[in-house]
Amino acid sequence: MNRRGLLLILSSPSGAGKSTLTKMLMAWDSTMRFSVSATTRSPRPGEADGREYYFRARPDFEAMVAAGEMLEHAEVFGNFYGTPKGPVESAMKEGRDTVFDIDWQGGQQIRNSSLGRDVVSIFVLPPSIAELDRRLRTRGQDSDEVIATRMAKSRDEISHWAEYDYVLVNEDLTDTFERLKTILTAERLRRDRQPRLSDFVRGLNTEFAAR
Amino acid sequence: MNRRGLLLILSSPSGAGKSTLTKMLMAWDSTMRFSVSATTRSPRPGEADGREYYFRARPDFEAMVAAGEMLEHAEVFGNFYGTPKGPVESAMKEGRDTVFDIDWQGGQQIRNSSLGRDVVSIFVLPPSIAELDRRLRTRGQDSDEVIATRMAKSRDEISHWAEYDYVLVNEDLTDTFERLKTILTAERLRRDRQPRLSDFVRGLNTEFAAR
Repeated sequence: MNRRGLLLILSSPSGAGKSTLTKMLMAWDSTMRFSVSATTRSPRPGEADGREYYFRARPDFEAMVAAGEMLEHAEVFGNFYGTPKGPVESAMKEGRDTVFDIDWQGGQQIRNSSLGRDVVSIFVLPPSIAELDRRLRTRGQDSDEVIATRMAKSRDEISHWAEYDYVLVNEDLTDTFERLKTILTAERLRRDRQPRLSDFVRGLNTEFAAR
Repeated sequence: MNRRGLLLILSSPSGAGKSTLTKMLMAWDSTMRFSVSATTRSPRPGEADGREYYFRARPDFEAMVAAGEMLEHAEVFGNFYGTPKGPVESAMKEGRDTVFDIDWQGGQQIRNSSLGRDVVSIFVLPPSIAELDRRLRTRGQDSDEVIATRMAKSRDEISHWAEYDYVLVNEDLTDTFERLKTILTAERLRRDRQPRLSDFVRGLNTEFAAR
């Protein structure tokens, strides 16, 4: 029997490094599954359907919600975002961990869902707001107005930091990634995530009995 | 404000490597405090009062229990063992973690005490009973009868493995120690163990407000 995969939720304001950390994690452990969200927003340049997001028309998205196929969903800036439930449950059964690059609303809903006890949640904070602003600007593809809106959203996002199991201040990416790997490695060592242990201890007891 | 120190409880059957791991941990991080238990049993060769144990006469031990000065205590093989509470609380306030090399009875009592939420508990299992037996014998100072009694106690101890947060099978000491350090490092990154974060986020909000 495989261990049950865990659900690693990474949240942070835009620009704090969450997406980069997620990519590093996926490259480090190829057994991990990235949870691709569904959204009603239009693809940005370079985004592909099924990779960054499942891009869905509004009626299709609403039909999925109505059918109970979304683990969580929320509206942000007039667009819907949500996590299809099926792939998450499949990965868990296979003993694969799933990484979620989602905001506090999504995190809150998954924590409160029936899969809540399998959640490990991490909030990534920027070292300063000046640095957050700098990182958003160097992406270079957004207008001042878009950046201002995103900074307001960041402030809202940061206000939920205390709902997470772990908090990482991302001063240095390499260092933050080390701490992220440490958390994941430790969480996998939790007793309730090692189902083979029961068999192992049964074996020890058989040895005792045979003495 | 310092973070509140955590209580790291290590339990295992005698010979599974718990005491060695504890010593390695103390050598690795000099800020950690080893919880010295009090006991009514006689010192073994090489043991010093206040280092391995506080050796106390039975009436003195019972007076400490009566005065509420023991965080936990239990009787094993006709002797009392217990953890003096004062030093643990002082360490916590100083932000120092305390390591407990205690059995399941002590672990259970500390988990159920008022300090329970600060506990991180780890159970160390031997790779096999044959190996456990071998390790007990190579200590070379105990009779067959003492070893038999200790093996019975080991079986009892192992039956409580499922009460612990984490379980480590100690096949290779270096590897097990790495996993132990990983668990401790991750647990220190938990949000509720980083009290300075509140101030840090307050700083971020001040930055937002000043924009």
